[in-house]
Amino acid sequence: MRLSKTITHITGGGSDGWELFVKARKMIAEGHKVTELTIGEHDIKTDTRILEAMHAAALGGATGYAMVPGIDALRDAVATRLTTRTGVPTALENVLITAGGQAALFAAFRAALDEGDTALFIDPYYATYPGTIRSVGGVPKAVQASADNGFQPTFEALDAAARGAKALLINSPNNPTGAVYSRDTLEMIATVAKAHDLIVISDEVYDTQVWEGEHISIRALDGMAERTFVVGSMSKSHAMTGSRVGWLVGPEGAMEHVLNLLTNTNYGVAGFTQQAALFALGLGEGFEEEIAAPFKRRRALVQKALEGQNLVRLSPPSGAMYVVLDIRATGLSGDAFADKLLMERHIAVMPGESFGQAGAGHIRVAMTIPDAPFEAALKEIVDFTAGLV
Amino acid sequence: MRLSKTITHITGGGSDGWELFVKARKMIAEGHKVTELTIGEHDIKTDTRILEAMHAAALGGATGYAMVPGIDALRDAVATRLTTRTGVPTALENVLITAGGQAALFAAFRAALDEGDTALFIDPYYATYPGTIRSVGGVPKAVQASADNGFQPTFEALDAAARGAKALLINSPNNPTGAVYSRDTLEMIATVAKAHDLIVISDEVYDTQVWEGEHISIRALDGMAERTFVVGSMSKSHAMTGSRVGWLVGPEGAMEHVLNLLTNTNYGVAGFTQQAALFALGLGEGFEEEIAAPFKRRRALVQKALEGQNLVRLSPPSGAMYVVLDIRATGLSGDAFADKLLMERHIAVMPGESFGQAGAGHIRVAMTIPDAPFEAALKEIVDFTAGLV
Repeated sequence: MRLSKTITHITGGGSDGWELFVKARKMIAEGHKVTELTIGEHDIKTDTRILEAMHAAALGGATGYAMVPGIDALRDAVATRLTTRTGVPTALENVLITAGGQAALFAAFRAALDEGDTALFIDPYYATYPGTIRSVGGVPKAVQASADNGFQPTFEALDAAARGAKALLINSPNNPTGAVYSRDTLEMIATVAKAHDLIVISDEVYDTQVWEGEHISIRALDGMAERTFVVGSMSKSHAMTGSRVGWLVGPEGAMEHVLNLLTNTNYGVAGFTQQAALFALGLGEGFEEEIAAPFKRRRALVQKALEGQNLVRLSPPSGAMYVVLDIRATGLSGDAFADKLLMERHIAVMPGESFGQAGAGHIRVAMTIPDAPFEAALKEIVDFTAGLV
Repeated sequence: MRLSKTITHITGGGSDGWELFVKARKMIAEGHKVTELTIGEHDIKTDTRILEAMHAAALGGATGYAMVPGIDALRDAVATRLTTRTGVPTALENVLITAGGQAALFAAFRAALDEGDTALFIDPYYATYPGTIRSVGGVPKAVQASADNGFQPTFEALDAAARGAKALLINSPNNPTGAVYSRDTLEMIATVAKAHDLIVISDEVYDTQVWEGEHISIRALDGMAERTFVVGSMSKSHAMTGSRVGWLVGPEGAMEHVLNLLTNTNYGVAGFTQQAALFALGLGEGFEEEIAAPFKRRRALVQKALEGQNLVRLSPPSGAMYVVLDIRATGLSGDAFADKLLMERHIAVMPGESFGQAGAGHIRVAMTIPDAPFEAALKEIVDFTAGLV
């Protein structure tokens, strides 16, 4: 088959950095007991009330083609949510429902890029970012955000990279680092975006998981609503990862074009899952806090476990369902550390290098197992590290 | 916003040909009673047993991220289905589960085309085809299949268009015409595809709806499995349009690249809808025949209603949930006929011109309302036509 260059280049040809993940999965398949701290997914299932609402909608007849933009009631609920949480007046016309946050991300890049156009993203980064850019024929360009700057990008790095670029993807609260961008950082990004006429794609799927400080949407800054797409999702905030319901928010004129795309990518999202999402949003902020609470609690367990030693340090940023640990004092790379930890203690964490160069010398620990085994794993990690020097 | 050329050109700038559909919808919204014969969707809902299976899967824990390629059991069931129905040995590795047939179609074009590459499709055609090609930056090129050739393409037209093209989309059984391609037609298409090294994308979502003759998959012809993607779906065969479960089938080496794309477009399909699809496939051929039966029955009603007059003729092809009626003897275009029928009799049908130039002088009647009102509408159409001359 004479396949397109675009599809054959999606992975960029190099390692995908997830060898450790695959190795851990293989060990589990072979019968080894491995504590997995690699997965960005809650250790609880979707709430039964939400599933009952979905079933009621399906039995009630929501089994035919749904409107491609999404059902009005859900678009409206998302619009209200954004208006309330970010202060930016948002109407139904600014909102399109997508098959999860990833589909929204894909649509945003298709809206911003033609073949050969450059899109910036901040390193460390979530695994699908460069591949999504390449999937629309774009050229991904990483901008390093160093650990010593709290994994927030600097003006110098961003401005230098922005020459000739078309789009910039940011993600705060951040996966993998947990960084929550400060107002200063966001103002700086907005300045660069305006100077270089960039479309900003703001992945805010962790916006309900902030342990210190506050989440600010870049779309709320002066003059940014007109050049920003916001990616949102029910996955992390409502423990609905498998339902694949997300949204893209942007200027009304742009959304008309995005709708044309959605007609041709998925032809809409299942009506019964949209009804489930609508019900879930109706459970209110209290429910979202319940879903986020375990990660906040476990982050405190991490702080406690790391007390009184200096080899493993908790990276200061504080959002999302992960912590990043700085293990540079051990002299090992993140890769080497994670591999040794897996082989000797059967604990799987992600090497920082899996998320880009700026993650070197770090590991990402997902706080997605129950408290007791999580605490035990942390104790093991500290003990393991002490034995390294 | 400095949007991409690709996204702003998806509609191709012209009319989308669905003005009549919109006009009918508006009349209904204003309170008029309109008989709608425009919609490609069953008049029944998804079977309750399938919905119960979905609910059981969700309650049973299938609410987290599903494997991106699809769950093994469903990939396996689809592979077995294709092996049985088409005779082509098909394994799980040849199958990727997508968010409906449209997502499979999109993935196939992304696999075949880079920006500026030409893709052929047969006119008359389903509405999303040119937009899907443009969504990946491709150039759509229609090949006319005339009514007088049973809406099947000819070697001359296809071979002339194929110079420099990369891909060819076919759809048999066909929407809108109901044409079921003969073995001769498919052999001819295969010859052209091999001569011009085309990737063939075969949309076979109506493969369970054949009223005369038999469905042959072009993938089963000599040397075609290695250059063919097959698009399939649960939508039409199992009345699951709203569930958005489909698949793409192709050579294993190509599917590895398509998987990279699916990771970045949707990051998988909801596990509980996949379980529902698996259950539905398990209901067997008897169930599929039940779902198809109303269309077969109503096609006989069309034949009966048109007896004894020569102004409206049933186009001979015979598959899918539509009939195409040749109204050239009235001297009206499909557009004019459909508009007049809507205004005078409050019956909405699609003008053939909505589906491309080759549909001129025809109307498409969807057989998607219950028998009694369907029969009454047919009587009205015949009466209306008699009054035209």
